[in-house]
Amino acid sequence: MRIIAIVGYHNTGKTTLIENLIGKLKKRGYRVGYIKHDPKGHGETDRKGSDTDRVFRIAERVVLASPDRITLWSRFEDDPVKIAEEFFKGFDVVILEGYKSLKGVPKVAVGDVLAEDVALRIEGSADVEDIIELLESMEERP
Amino acid sequence: MRIIAIVGYHNTGKTTLIENLIGKLKKRGYRVGYIKHDPKGHGETDRKGSDTDRVFRIAERVVLASPDRITLWSRFEDDPVKIAEEFFKGFDVVILEGYKSLKGVPKVAVGDVLAEDVALRIEGSADVEDIIELLESMEERP
Repeated sequence: MRIIAIVGYHNTGKTTLIENLIGKLKKRGYRVGYIKHDPKGHGETDRKGSDTDRVFRIAERVVLASPDRITLWSRFEDDPVKIAEEFFKGFDVVILEGYKSLKGVPKVAVGDVLAEDVALRIEGSADVEDIIELLESMEERP
Repeated sequence: MRIIAIVGYHNTGKTTLIENLIGKLKKRGYRVGYIKHDPKGHGETDRKGSDTDRVFRIAERVVLASPDRITLWSRFEDDPVKIAEEFFKGFDVVILEGYKSLKGVPKVAVGDVLAEDVALRIEGSADVEDIIELLESMEERP
């Protein structure tokens, strides 16, 4: 598995870049996952009072199994590498969005953002091939 | 790991029963997970147009990492035993809600509902100890 993070200020096109990147990685046959950092906890992912919302207040991990997807909620530590190891076994690439200050994971910086361990600095979605080249040059994590 | 399903018609108190059951199982030191069946796909677990919603249209598996929890979406097969094997490794008990027609998993039937493999039929939340006894009498799955 290879893990990289895409970092940059708001509205710099990170998600569009990531969509393009995932499309190209899939064409090459890679299994690709994505972890989005929500440091302020703004994400609301269940309806208050639903069965899963009620049970998740007391259970460590809960799944809603729908026909086209599962949704899982879990209390889990706030380290994306640990999340990848637990929940993305068998994946080839995991792309993080955010995590500017995380050490030990190579960053693709979009624009002039400050971040730890910047491996590549780019200006927009035209640079997807450069990211793929970076990914393929990285050693796999065990 | 032991897996049981709680089945019954709507508004028969299944979720309240499950909350009581999980509370007691946790007191005994068990790690407990929960899988809710959403056969009609009524569950909406993300905001249209959010970054995770956009990326999940093309990626197989996506996580939103918030301070108190992670939320994960994945395309995955519609078999709760497979879901438990993939996403609840290391858990002692996984409780299913729904899945009346699923074969091979013991059912606790609340009220007079028809279901496959009914191991216990109960009338309400007073019967939690009977469910724990059933669980502890079951063989663990490997």
